[in-house]
Amino acid sequence: MQGVDPAWLPDVAFRPIGIRRTLIRGSGPLVDTVHGEVAGACERFGGSVSRESGSYDLVLELDGDDGSEGFVYGRGDGCTTVTASGARGLLYGFFHVVRLGETAFLDDARRASYQPESALRMLDHWDNVAVHPVMGQVERGYAGGSLFWEDGRARGDLERVRAYGRLLAACGINAVAVNNVNVHATEARLLTDRIGEVADIAGALRPYGIRTHLSVTFAAPVVLGGLASADPLDESVRAWWAEATARVYTAIPDFGGFVVKADSEGQPGPFAYGRSHADGANMLAAALAPHGGSVHWRAFVYNHHQDWRNRSTDRARAAYDHFVPLDGEFADNAVLQVKHGPMDFQVREPVSPLIGAMPGTRLAVELQATQEYTGQQRHVCWLGPMWSEVLRFGTDGESSVGASARGGLVAVANVGDDPFWTGHPLAQANLYTFGRLAWDPNADPHHVLDEWIRLTFGPGPGPGLAAGLRSILDGSWRTYEKYTAPLGVGFMVQPGHHYGPSVDGYEYSPWGTYHFADRDGVGVDRSVATGTGYAGQYAKPWADVYESPLSCPDELLLFFHHVSYGHMLHSGKTVIQHIYDTHFEGVAEVEAARERWASLVDLVEPARHARVAERFEEQLRSAREWRDQVNSYFFRKSGVADERGRTIY
Amino acid sequence: MQGVDPAWLPDVAFRPIGIRRTLIRGSGPLVDTVHGEVAGACERFGGSVSRESGSYDLVLELDGDDGSEGFVYGRGDGCTTVTASGARGLLYGFFHVVRLGETAFLDDARRASYQPESALRMLDHWDNVAVHPVMGQVERGYAGGSLFWEDGRARGDLERVRAYGRLLAACGINAVAVNNVNVHATEARLLTDRIGEVADIAGALRPYGIRTHLSVTFAAPVVLGGLASADPLDESVRAWWAEATARVYTAIPDFGGFVVKADSEGQPGPFAYGRSHADGANMLAAALAPHGGSVHWRAFVYNHHQDWRNRSTDRARAAYDHFVPLDGEFADNAVLQVKHGPMDFQVREPVSPLIGAMPGTRLAVELQATQEYTGQQRHVCWLGPMWSEVLRFGTDGESSVGASARGGLVAVANVGDDPFWTGHPLAQANLYTFGRLAWDPNADPHHVLDEWIRLTFGPGPGPGLAAGLRSILDGSWRTYEKYTAPLGVGFMVQPGHHYGPSVDGYEYSPWGTYHFADRDGVGVDRSVATGTGYAGQYAKPWADVYESPLSCPDELLLFFHHVSYGHMLHSGKTVIQHIYDTHFEGVAEVEAARERWASLVDLVEPARHARVAERFEEQLRSAREWRDQVNSYFFRKSGVADERGRTIY
Repeated sequence: MQGVDPAWLPDVAFRPIGIRRTLIRGSGPLVDTVHGEVAGACERFGGSVSRESGSYDLVLELDGDDGSEGFVYGRGDGCTTVTASGARGLLYGFFHVVRLGETAFLDDARRASYQPESALRMLDHWDNVAVHPVMGQVERGYAGGSLFWEDGRARGDLERVRAYGRLLAACGINAVAVNNVNVHATEARLLTDRIGEVADIAGALRPYGIRTHLSVTFAAPVVLGGLASADPLDESVRAWWAEATARVYTAIPDFGGFVVKADSEGQPGPFAYGRSHADGANMLAAALAPHGGSVHWRAFVYNHHQDWRNRSTDRARAAYDHFVPLDGEFADNAVLQVKHGPMDFQVREPVSPLIGAMPGTRLAVELQATQEYTGQQRHVCWLGPMWSEVLRFGTDGESSVGASARGGLVAVANVGDDPFWTGHPLAQANLYTFGRLAWDPNADPHHVLDEWIRLTFGPGPGPGLAAGLRSILDGSWRTYEKYTAPLGVGFMVQPGHHYGPSVDGYEYSPWGTYHFADRDGVGVDRSVATGTGYAGQYAKPWADVYESPLSCPDELLLFFHHVSYGHMLHSGKTVIQHIYDTHFEGVAEVEAARERWASLVDLVEPARHARVAERFEEQLRSAREWRDQVNSYFFRKSGVADERGRTIY
Repeated sequence: MQGVDPAWLPDVAFRPIGIRRTLIRGSGPLVDTVHGEVAGACERFGGSVSRESGSYDLVLELDGDDGSEGFVYGRGDGCTTVTASGARGLLYGFFHVVRLGETAFLDDARRASYQPESALRMLDHWDNVAVHPVMGQVERGYAGGSLFWEDGRARGDLERVRAYGRLLAACGINAVAVNNVNVHATEARLLTDRIGEVADIAGALRPYGIRTHLSVTFAAPVVLGGLASADPLDESVRAWWAEATARVYTAIPDFGGFVVKADSEGQPGPFAYGRSHADGANMLAAALAPHGGSVHWRAFVYNHHQDWRNRSTDRARAAYDHFVPLDGEFADNAVLQVKHGPMDFQVREPVSPLIGAMPGTRLAVELQATQEYTGQQRHVCWLGPMWSEVLRFGTDGESSVGASARGGLVAVANVGDDPFWTGHPLAQANLYTFGRLAWDPNADPHHVLDEWIRLTFGPGPGPGLAAGLRSILDGSWRTYEKYTAPLGVGFMVQPGHHYGPSVDGYEYSPWGTYHFADRDGVGVDRSVATGTGYAGQYAKPWADVYESPLSCPDELLLFFHHVSYGHMLHSGKTVIQHIYDTHFEGVAEVEAARERWASLVDLVEPARHARVAERFEEQLRSAREWRDQVNSYFFRKSGVADERGRTIY
């Protein structure tokens, strides 16, 4: 733990509590956790904590334990009170006070109830137990090794896992899946003979209200159980899963459930037996139901052996085409986990039309905190605004994405054993923001960002630092969008590792990720009238909005339409001039952010400042590469000169 | 050895000798080798071998041992004679008889002298001792594992090494470098504490007249010797090399010498100490000279951190620019090893202008038998015609490339532990052809091919098989050229592994491998008048020929010039129509070759037929991918329709 960054829980964040008198009422492990937190703060800052009555500044009270996660918070008569009827609620109420800081003890507040919007707020770790020859210890991980695993076994460093759980609890996360959805041979065995290693991790996360989940392979009955089949309707297969699951619950009584990537990018699934995804998910749901667990079944199913010559196939259509016919068939504790966009975590995608199209199914929406396509934690790219746009998308509040995600909100984790947790220290903001938006999808992300800055950097250095950080992070997602693939077209990255530009990198690939640029124009026609029909997967009014290039929002134009370079955007610019302008602007914005960071040198601790400064050098180099390759590519193809005569190679 | 293909030395090839009476005169280890060969053949076929005088059909006679490699062959009075004044000469004379087969005993022949054109005929193995995480056991190897090394140590299977040496001797090769020119940590130690493993290999190759060479790292004094420097003018460094080399000769008295890749693609070299490549090479030459060894110093030096934006840098220029100023400075036993083209073994390159421009330096010319850029032994691509063109290149015989290569002819090996030696059974023809052309660069490659067919497939199946094989192999290099990068432009491959098309794969890379295609045209201007000046590195008349697109040969046009798609070739076609036509033709030729192979099913042993048939499936798939990607790329860019209206996507 030595040298590990405290992230948004530095000691100083506990000072407002630590100098005061606190009363804690109630009992149970999570109450003990809260008590330990308060007692630790008081030790450091001189306050007191008691379980007796008397005169107090802060009362934290658990009344019963009904399993709920909400709490009531208020302040009056010189006393701040948190009351909860569930143990997790008390924990979250406590961290609510931590986040408020001095405000919690200065401003009177009417008692009000706070509830998470979603019952499941989860991080999926794509961590491998054994180092994968291509993907490494953490698939798409940019923060060093895994917190949980190293070279084929559990790390054993549960101190770090506990600290991680504490950080997660402080932003509202209550579930963690501890291994990669691509389940290789070693990882498969976590379900059976190696469940003890998972139980140890679960034990370290439990004091912070976090339930542990496990990614499993659909082929487990064959590869682990020695059965001839994994057919979900085969009774011996069902019995195998029931027994295996029962053993998991013996080891981990509050186990959360399974995460499954099936019939997806080469992973085994029910198709091999002529069964549906509902058959597959329901078999696991049945095994989990007696114990109160859920299965998270990923909807990331598409043909990854596509022929680029065939323009009628459209990967964007796949999830909807596969799953909408199954609506109503999934068990209550089977959650269909849907990526927020139809492709794969590009910097700009439309919201997946699957979300909202399956009213009879519990859906979870999956976001990606790990910056696979958004700069791999070498670039600053705060994703709060993107996630907020996604979660608020919908015709009205009730049918918004956030409200549709009855099965929870999930993010692919962006942490590792890096001292700063996330490689790029400022990428911590993504993890924090995810937790807070998962609790309240309608929260203002900029407010969340300010909260993260205040907690992480403390009240000390004054407004200059906060303003600087805000200016660096606030627009960083749009900056990244500007210098990378334009107008929603996506995928212009180096194949395989997905870092850095390659405009044609996926243009002739089997992965279904094309832009069809020629000398006249660029973009994918996904209209119903003349294209793949994908636009028709949306409900009104979106089907109409996306159908025509005239109504389609600029930022998604090339996702939905193939247009000429001279096509006029709503912004008043042509497509080609937009490409040039945004790419020059994006790099200029990185230069400005880098300068701004340099100006904060005296306000940030040296190690953290140096780490970010070093990453800015790489971000700038990379952003220039993006700018020049994309501009040159389109200039060479279109022959249209930049209106402003800037250098294009 | 069980199941290993006999390649061009099947038992039946020894029948003409094995049924006859042979007299062998002379003594020494190589005479014993020849005696053993003849005795084995006689055992199988009923003939006799003796070291007494008498009446014989064949006399093999070593008269003294002056180290020469030639022999005198003739037939008259019912007796065939081979006379040599050096032991290797007797060995080569014996295999000359083997290659002639029955002809050697039927047709009278005037005694004539046979001499190798070049004293060094070498295979460089890019074999790693330890499996490299990216490059594997054999860098650019497409024939399984290494013959010499496995998982960090010598294989120990010297039987297979001995069989390999025998195959090489039969086509005239006399030197082998046993490890990769990229010398990693494990491989470095072959020079010192692991020289015993090299000595074992040398012992297995020695009976077939092959000297063993070792690739070493220039940094050896630092990484192995613990010195602070590897400065070639530092006396302690020179002393270290002298001692290390002496110890090598203690272990391997006939050791051939070192191969060095220095200051090249990240390998260490003399530049770090402000010294020249001549300084570096001469230091090693000095260490080797007392023992009769040579250093092969590779000229593959260029900037691999090039900026694609800067069109004035030209990788093609690099070797000439680096080395021509050093002409005359290299020691007698320092050989400058030059790739045959200025880039990197593309299917079509001009001959390197360095060859012929360094009259005061011993040059070796390096070819690539392993098919890194020519189909990776999944495609049929017999390189004989290309090598022959290269070796005969020059204004007249005396200044031809073959004659300029006073330091030897070298090929990067294409063999591994595959049962067929070369992965693709027909790729054996490349290995054989290299040996025969190294012996005689002016040999007709088609004659060599016929010889290989006759030896490998035996006299049995008759003319149908030979004609079929000839038709499949003869034009296969030009077929490969047709469906890949057009008109000498090179590099349109997938980065890293170099298999399959990616037209822009290296277009924005630091490796200096560009084609600059835009909507108007394609190609690299390397003229003196308006380009990088590379054309001016050639002597007359080639400097003039290449300088102008009017005189530049079609097949190299895009290597030397950037021209419009409408530019008219000497062939009477436009560039764009040439691209379309050749790509359709190339695929059609693969289809025809595949059919032809299928028709030979009853004439080829089943395992070999199946292996080739399976590779043809992949070749055809890949050729179609090349055709469609290249055609689509240029159609999308140029907007010019195919004259014949064929399908372009």
